[in-house]
Amino acid sequence: MNREQMIESVRAQMPERRWLHTLGVMETSIILAKRFGEDPIRAERAAILHDVAKYWATDRMESVIRERGLPAILLEYDKELWHAPVGAWVAEHEYGIDDMEVLDAIRYHTSGRRGMTKLDKVVCLADYMEPGRDFPGVDNIRELSEQDLDKALVAGFDSTISFLLQKNRRIFPLTIEARNALLESYI
Amino acid sequence: MNREQMIESVRAQMPERRWLHTLGVMETSIILAKRFGEDPIRAERAAILHDVAKYWATDRMESVIRERGLPAILLEYDKELWHAPVGAWVAEHEYGIDDMEVLDAIRYHTSGRRGMTKLDKVVCLADYMEPGRDFPGVDNIRELSEQDLDKALVAGFDSTISFLLQKNRRIFPLTIEARNALLESYI
Repeated sequence: MNREQMIESVRAQMPERRWLHTLGVMETSIILAKRFGEDPIRAERAAILHDVAKYWATDRMESVIRERGLPAILLEYDKELWHAPVGAWVAEHEYGIDDMEVLDAIRYHTSGRRGMTKLDKVVCLADYMEPGRDFPGVDNIRELSEQDLDKALVAGFDSTISFLLQKNRRIFPLTIEARNALLESYI
Repeated sequence: MNREQMIESVRAQMPERRWLHTLGVMETSIILAKRFGEDPIRAERAAILHDVAKYWATDRMESVIRERGLPAILLEYDKELWHAPVGAWVAEHEYGIDDMEVLDAIRYHTSGRRGMTKLDKVVCLADYMEPGRDFPGVDNIRELSEQDLDKALVAGFDSTISFLLQKNRRIFPLTIEARNALLESYI
């Protein structure tokens, strides 16, 4: 499947609003990849597919998690987290992506993880700060991203954690591990 | 060692200010234990000893952690966390406490843990809200504690997590697990 076919196929699986978000993540991933020395083509590929499963029905995501051996702990946490690992599975098995780092960047784009690759960071950060995003702190994230990939990403995770605190919602442990590992690398 | 001897011994190991805090935790633990159906004598015992190692030198705490087989992962996190498990070790080996739940309430009074006992919760919450404490959100915690041990404790953990976010400091995973488990029990 070439780039245009992939784009058309992904676009067909989501509402227009979410497709505009995906376009924003594609554009921002390319900018960040160039800025911080990652391959912009791989970054764009992960960005195109990062939300491919976002609008799947819950039971369709759940059956991929259960039947394809994805981490069962996901089922204990917010459904918001499921589309990322399910999307990586779809990217591999339905779009033929065999670049493990691209697959991981899709898999961890919502949660983060300990020891994120540069590609993970680029896609995760682009998802926080693409031009369509508007939430408290997003301007600070954009400003930090001019200079420092890690600090910008920590600010992104901070915004997620603050949001979950305010909403009385559980926090996915991988996000804490991701943030701790980033802080460790520069503090 | 009787209660008075224990109190004198612990008092001698900390500055007056911290001893006043310990008195506040003792008093508050008794109130909370009675309110929520825990044994006030065990709650007070854990409270007396909860900060016994708080003013130990770092290398003394570190040698207990390394030489007595405490979880080595502690050494990767803030020293603020060390005095709780070290204190449990001291309570067992120097004060002869053999009540495992009292030891656990000391061990987890700073971090919390998944599946906290009622005694854990009482001592941890008392440590957040004893009368000498003054930080953003403490009045909310006190108010919640009138009715609901779990909600008050979640508010306590929320204040810790917010503080660590603001200070760009790492968050101990057990605290996230503790908060997640509490939320799970009532949401």
